[in-house]
Amino acid sequence: MNVLIKNGTIVTAENEYKSDIFIEDEKIQMIASCINQSADLIIDAQNKYILPGGIDQHTHFDALCNSGCMNTSGYEATDSVLRGGTTTIIDYAPQDPGKGLIDSIEFRKSKRAEGVIAVDYSLHALVTDATSNILEEIPHLAENGVPTIKLFMAYKGSPLYVDDGVLFNVLSLSARHGITVFVHAENADIIDTLQKRYLAEGKYEPKYHAETRPPFVEAEAAERAITIAKAAGAPVHIVHVSCAEAAKAIQNARANNEPVFGECVTHHLVLTDVELSRPNFEGSKYVCSPPLRNEYHIDALWNAIKNNWIQTISSDHCGIDYAVMKHLGFDDFTQIPNGSPGAADRIHMIWTHGVETGRISKQRFVDVTSTYPAKVNGIFPQKGHIGIGSDADILIFDPNYRGIVNLKDNPNGVDFNVYEGLKQIGKVEKVLLRGMLVVNDGEFVGQMGQGRFIPGKTYGQCYQ
Amino acid sequence: MNVLIKNGTIVTAENEYKSDIFIEDEKIQMIASCINQSADLIIDAQNKYILPGGIDQHTHFDALCNSGCMNTSGYEATDSVLRGGTTTIIDYAPQDPGKGLIDSIEFRKSKRAEGVIAVDYSLHALVTDATSNILEEIPHLAENGVPTIKLFMAYKGSPLYVDDGVLFNVLSLSARHGITVFVHAENADIIDTLQKRYLAEGKYEPKYHAETRPPFVEAEAAERAITIAKAAGAPVHIVHVSCAEAAKAIQNARANNEPVFGECVTHHLVLTDVELSRPNFEGSKYVCSPPLRNEYHIDALWNAIKNNWIQTISSDHCGIDYAVMKHLGFDDFTQIPNGSPGAADRIHMIWTHGVETGRISKQRFVDVTSTYPAKVNGIFPQKGHIGIGSDADILIFDPNYRGIVNLKDNPNGVDFNVYEGLKQIGKVEKVLLRGMLVVNDGEFVGQMGQGRFIPGKTYGQCYQ
Amino acid sequence: MNVLIKNGTIVTAENEYKSDIFIEDEKIQMIASCINQSADLIIDAQNKYILPGGIDQHTHFDALCNSGCMNTSGYEATDSVLRGGTTTIIDYAPQDPGKGLIDSIEFRKSKRAEGVIAVDYSLHALVTDATSNILEEIPHLAENGVPTIKLFMAYKGSPLYVDDGVLFNVLSLSARHGITVFVHAENADIIDTLQKRYLAEGKYEPKYHAETRPPFVEAEAAERAITIAKAAGAPVHIVHVSCAEAAKAIQNARANNEPVFGECVTHHLVLTDVELSRPNFEGSKYVCSPPLRNEYHIDALWNAIKNNWIQTISSDHCGIDYAVMKHLGFDDFTQIPNGSPGAADRIHMIWTHGVETGRISKQRFVDVTSTYPAKVNGIFPQKGHIGIGSDADILIFDPNYRGIVNLKDNPNGVDFNVYEGLKQIGKVEKVLLRGMLVVNDGEFVGQMGQGRFIPGKTYGQCYQ
Amino acid sequence: MNVLIKNGTIVTAENEYKSDIFIEDEKIQMIASCINQSADLIIDAQNKYILPGGIDQHTHFDALCNSGCMNTSGYEATDSVLRGGTTTIIDYAPQDPGKGLIDSIEFRKSKRAEGVIAVDYSLHALVTDATSNILEEIPHLAENGVPTIKLFMAYKGSPLYVDDGVLFNVLSLSARHGITVFVHAENADIIDTLQKRYLAEGKYEPKYHAETRPPFVEAEAAERAITIAKAAGAPVHIVHVSCAEAAKAIQNARANNEPVFGECVTHHLVLTDVELSRPNFEGSKYVCSPPLRNEYHIDALWNAIKNNWIQTISSDHCGIDYAVMKHLGFDDFTQIPNGSPGAADRIHMIWTHGVETGRISKQRFVDVTSTYPAKVNGIFPQKGHIGIGSDADILIFDPNYRGIVNLKDNPNGVDFNVYEGLKQIGKVEKVLLRGMLVVNDGEFVGQMGQGRFIPGKTYGQCYQ
Repeated sequence: MNVLIKNGTIVTAENEYKSDIFIEDEKIQMIASCINQSADLIIDAQNKYILPGGIDQHTHFDALCNSGCMNTSGYEATDSVLRGGTTTIIDYAPQDPGKGLIDSIEFRKSKRAEGVIAVDYSLHALVTDATSNILEEIPHLAENGVPTIKLFMAYKGSPLYVDDGVLFNVLSLSARHGITVFVHAENADIIDTLQKRYLAEGKYEPKYHAETRPPFVEAEAAERAITIAKAAGAPVHIVHVSCAEAAKAIQNARANNEPVFGECVTHHLVLTDVELSRPNFEGSKYVCSPPLRNEYHIDALWNAIKNNWIQTISSDHCGIDYAVMKHLGFDDFTQIPNGSPGAADRIHMIWTHGVETGRISKQRFVDVTSTYPAKVNGIFPQKGHIGIGSDADILIFDPNYRGIVNLKDNPNGVDFNVYEGLKQIGKVEKVLLRGMLVVNDGEFVGQMGQGRFIPGKTYGQCYQ
Repeated sequence: MNVLIKNGTIVTAENEYKSDIFIEDEKIQMIASCINQSADLIIDAQNKYILPGGIDQHTHFDALCNSGCMNTSGYEATDSVLRGGTTTIIDYAPQDPGKGLIDSIEFRKSKRAEGVIAVDYSLHALVTDATSNILEEIPHLAENGVPTIKLFMAYKGSPLYVDDGVLFNVLSLSARHGITVFVHAENADIIDTLQKRYLAEGKYEPKYHAETRPPFVEAEAAERAITIAKAAGAPVHIVHVSCAEAAKAIQNARANNEPVFGECVTHHLVLTDVELSRPNFEGSKYVCSPPLRNEYHIDALWNAIKNNWIQTISSDHCGIDYAVMKHLGFDDFTQIPNGSPGAADRIHMIWTHGVETGRISKQRFVDVTSTYPAKVNGIFPQKGHIGIGSDADILIFDPNYRGIVNLKDNPNGVDFNVYEGLKQIGKVEKVLLRGMLVVNDGEFVGQMGQGRFIPGKTYGQCYQ
Repeated sequence: MNVLIKNGTIVTAENEYKSDIFIEDEKIQMIASCINQSADLIIDAQNKYILPGGIDQHTHFDALCNSGCMNTSGYEATDSVLRGGTTTIIDYAPQDPGKGLIDSIEFRKSKRAEGVIAVDYSLHALVTDATSNILEEIPHLAENGVPTIKLFMAYKGSPLYVDDGVLFNVLSLSARHGITVFVHAENADIIDTLQKRYLAEGKYEPKYHAETRPPFVEAEAAERAITIAKAAGAPVHIVHVSCAEAAKAIQNARANNEPVFGECVTHHLVLTDVELSRPNFEGSKYVCSPPLRNEYHIDALWNAIKNNWIQTISSDHCGIDYAVMKHLGFDDFTQIPNGSPGAADRIHMIWTHGVETGRISKQRFVDVTSTYPAKVNGIFPQKGHIGIGSDADILIFDPNYRGIVNLKDNPNGVDFNVYEGLKQIGKVEKVLLRGMLVVNDGEFVGQMGQGRFIPGKTYGQCYQ
Repeated sequence: MNVLIKNGTIVTAENEYKSDIFIEDEKIQMIASCINQSADLIIDAQNKYILPGGIDQHTHFDALCNSGCMNTSGYEATDSVLRGGTTTIIDYAPQDPGKGLIDSIEFRKSKRAEGVIAVDYSLHALVTDATSNILEEIPHLAENGVPTIKLFMAYKGSPLYVDDGVLFNVLSLSARHGITVFVHAENADIIDTLQKRYLAEGKYEPKYHAETRPPFVEAEAAERAITIAKAAGAPVHIVHVSCAEAAKAIQNARANNEPVFGECVTHHLVLTDVELSRPNFEGSKYVCSPPLRNEYHIDALWNAIKNNWIQTISSDHCGIDYAVMKHLGFDDFTQIPNGSPGAADRIHMIWTHGVETGRISKQRFVDVTSTYPAKVNGIFPQKGHIGIGSDADILIFDPNYRGIVNLKDNPNGVDFNVYEGLKQIGKVEKVLLRGMLVVNDGEFVGQMGQGRFIPGKTYGQCYQ
């Protein structure tokens, strides 16, 4: 099978130019101003952008949610991800109860993803039991194709929580093995204290979720993670930065030449905390941690992305439904499972709110949604790039599309979409995954189970 | 009883001038270039400095030590404090097991200090049981003459430890009532982790106490306390700052107009961590938290004191003996009770290492050892000042004295002195406490039990 | 002649207390809670504050104004200064054409002040001819009682202007001799360029004076002076800081432990640039450099004063009249002589706008208007302090006075007062100058010519 | 004419990959993993890197030197530049006496470069007469293909010097037209003062050139340019940053999101000020401004380049000979013409000292020596990139070469080379200029006069 893409405009993290592309054996084999060669499939990309397939480095498709229960939907919903223009996810592999990091990774590969998943994928180790022998496992993560690990400073009382001692140990050890550490930074003690205070005052509604996690709670933890990482001699990647103060903490560290990196997620860049006050418990759909903020913070985050204080944009996708799972917290906001689906909407929402508003250039868009995440996770240039020898993961993107987000157009496995009804500019028309046409005119035309595990290399971008 | 001091040179926090002083009814009544009046006692202070009596805002005379045991010596040893030139201590009143803050304060006043203590004193509330109703007590502290409260971020696993939620709550509430919060800033989790790692590696000696509490552990906690205080809208006073990085955290906050204050203690300004390696377990005498550092940190601290980033110098006195109590940790450094006596040596050691070396002026000396602590704790200008109407707490100080510190010259209630054998420049010759001559030529000539509780006013200096 | 002040409340830079004061031989001899002694003059200060006489370190009484012409009024108007509560001025002694620094200083002492001046005074050297042998004179300034020197970075094209090379040389040399350097910081080139641009556009009115000297012009020069002073190893005192950005430059340097100091002047703390648009050329009365700013800057300056980023408040008094001299620039704002009278109104305007509004404490008021300037200029504790042995320069101040500023109440030697008609809280009732009653119930009862030259000591406060 | 490059490894600013390249009609037409097509010239690049031709944005080939005299050698020596691996220079076009900016640009194009120059080139306008109508010309620069302008803050007394008013005007106006301003930042006044002081002390040798231009002189001017640019609303590019302090000024501005950019030049990254003390007046060869510094500064500069505080590396080439022109300052260092040749050695010296030492990656090397300068000067992606549609300006670079720099191997038009005798790692073997083979095995095989003027676009990278 070979493919020829004609007449399109290639956009990369540093350039934009018109070229044809020829694909064979899953790879990009030729880029040229004009290719007149026969091919099994010829795509006319006139007036379209040719983008590298999106890399979403932060998804929870196969996850224990923070209250310990399983997601509503998992890898069987990853066709939606492809329709949304993301060709590789890096999913979190939480340590299963009583299991080690590596066993939990292998379980996800062989028992959950195998034969089911539609996108290519990597995995992050995710500590849920710091009392297990994780320090013995870290040196062996790389052999299993996993060069990254995630820790939660939040969620006191849940298995996710790790204290600063574990954080220090994991950072120190990871640095010796080129493992990149991702940190969820929120001060668990203060959240716990505020939650108890609110509940004691009879405040149960979803909106109090945000009030009990004010920005300083996140900024403090980010500062702490940065200080501890520095002491440990390790780079650190702070995930889902949601507020100006946390972004500033990262900015300050980077301004001081420290290897500190930040990630934003789509919903913090598009939605505000006003959503949490929706009637009929619909605010629960928007409960995530850190919580949605206001326009001040949205502006600060986009500014940080533009100026390279923040390097990646992900979805923090969680396949949690509204009808059942969100209702677990119906009369107590602290029991609402955190998170919402988003992997299917990242590409067009970031294009709409970032590129179309002039907040970021098209080059920056490609970098933060694809190229840089690939580098961070050790899969560049195989992924995240349109270049000779790279996997032919390619989007044919129509920048002239104008529409409205509608869950029916791209079902995501659960019963709501936080972007429902919002304006959408630009649309993924076709998607190639390793040279296979898997989305055509917005329809999934691939095979469930076609996704392949992509082992990452250690000493990724955060170590450069 | 009245007293006339002739021919001396008065040193205050902002000036130095020759004057006579007349004292009556416990107070300074007259300051004049020449007073020729009869008096019950006439002191010739020719060639001597007249200093306000020292204020030591950080002592643990009547304390549960951090491992829960009692001190070897308490208020019955406070004659040594007067001999050392300190006329008021502000002692920590730890919450007794099962008791509240105020009960514990009253207990110390009526059962421990009453009839025993030789110096005037105030008390700090000290939380050891955050699960008790401390938040209900804080609004009533002032009625009991106590406008200050102390929290420990360190000592995980002991009753002293409070988490960030408690810290936030106490800071928020204290700010509403003008209560000043003192914080012991060390990251408890990381210390705990490092201690376990060291013990697992068979490292038991006292010197490992310092290695398991590296500077970043203190600096991180100081930064965290500052961030949380800012969110709480409260000033904060970081106690016993021992390292450059923690001092810098305070400097940064103050450079940003935040109401953040810092205290140093004598031993961090004079001694280095080399002492911890003394043979025969003698290193245990020098075990304190934060630990002794090296010359780099000593220079940084003095520089911070000179430039007003640090405002107070205390002793962090603990009446713990070597023969019995220090030996509790003979084969495990984590079991060595922290602290050492020091209230009796603060004035001359700071004079020797600060004024005589040119690191600070005489005015700054008076400010940090007496005037400013009085202001912080709401007892200025009754204490900490040589001025009309102030208590006649006065030192006749001989700046020409040259000697060696010798425990026999000023027994401190326990069996060692960490300054033993060091050079001493300057000496407290006479001490007046509220106009009474209580030390004469270095001998205690007062009465045990003469000390009086001095209630502090709320909204002290940290609120200005 | 001796004087007894009874029943007043003494306010110093660090304290406030009720006491009587006894004065003899020009000095304060006794401060006591109750003095019952006969005296030539007994003043009852019940309900009054007893303040040290004001020190105004920045006046141009005997001055070449910046366009080269003489002031309307000089030392013969200094009775107004006493009525306003200032007992010592430090006047600028500009180098007269063709003369050296020291000759110009001696000329002012013997030919201008002698027999005329009513207040005590010191002098600053002021460079107007950098091509003369000023570098040979600087080592000899101290012998003439002058430990300070002033340079202008502004006023390109006038003799006042010095370039950065002169600034560097003077700073370097002054540091070797303990001479304190005061700098007028404005970027001369940019002002010149903007003025030309405005005049070319037909903009001649007084208000354009402010528009052609925007804040960055001052902040840039302040930053430059600070950088050059650091390279020269010299402290530097930036005068008449008028904007937030320049204050921030000083704050940043001080936060970095650099010996940088700042002065504010009354009009920048009280008046806004709106005044410059007054009709009938009355805006010219408010023309000064740096120019008046807006409320944003006023708030920033008060905040800087409160937090000790700025240490002194002066008047920048210029005895320039409106009828004749201001009209020199009637049709060209660049020709309006800069400055206005203000020495007579500093004390009550700063009290009204600083103390009464709660922006600064009474202690801070005394420090910035009297004590600190005395220290900076090497005349503390002779001046600027109420203490034994200090000159008996004392204000009896009624804090309960409420009135309106009226030029007739205190004629200042010229035909306008920029504070005319403004609310005044607090009033100087009596003034003692070296124990002489020179102002009584607001009336001058002293002798012209009574003022005495007060030689300053080198290595003033900026060197501590 | 078409060219096929086989088997090489392409290095770009963000990637490295093996590919073949096909070139036709001056452009890169095809990049593919394997191209088997006939071609007029087939180059085997096995074991070689394929780099984009160097862009040197800072040369003075056709220049008035700072003392007003002409260079020894000009565009007729640009064959050396190609041999050195630079395919485009952006030469300074100084305003000729009595001429405008645009006339001076056109003169250089038509009278000097035309028919002579061997490399492609752009031009910067360079102000030497601020009294001419430069403000009327700036809006028309772009029409002449010149989107950049250069100003000198140094060289007081020479026509090059502009004062801060001109700087502010030019920055303000340039920002409105998308013109990028380059600034030579040194404090002219202080240099002038120091030079006079040194000459007066009988210090004439070349080494005093460096002592009279200490780092703070450069840092101060950089800070000033940054402050003025901010006020003017303009980006600014500081050229030839030579010291840690100036680099820090840029870092601070960038850390604050200000559009400030910095350039380093080869000699400041490789040589130290020790060279200035060479005997026999050979130190004069190394006289340039800012002067050579020491290892501390070299390390700081490389660190700034690595962390993207500095974006470009140029040569600051001046074709000044030793035998005649340098000797103009034989007995007075202030008369030594500043500058030295360097365009021919930039690529291999930066590779040797940057890439081979591990200070920067190969990607960063390509960015700072080629891609970023092309973006800054508005000629990307035509120049500075290996991509479809870009000019086929390509280096075949042998990374395995080990040798010694020898002027005979690449004559540069004058009689010395400051890198003579230094170790060289890596070598430019072949150079293609718009698809023409112009250097083969290190020999120039092109035609003098083949160089083409490349008009730049306004709103270059500094405006992004």
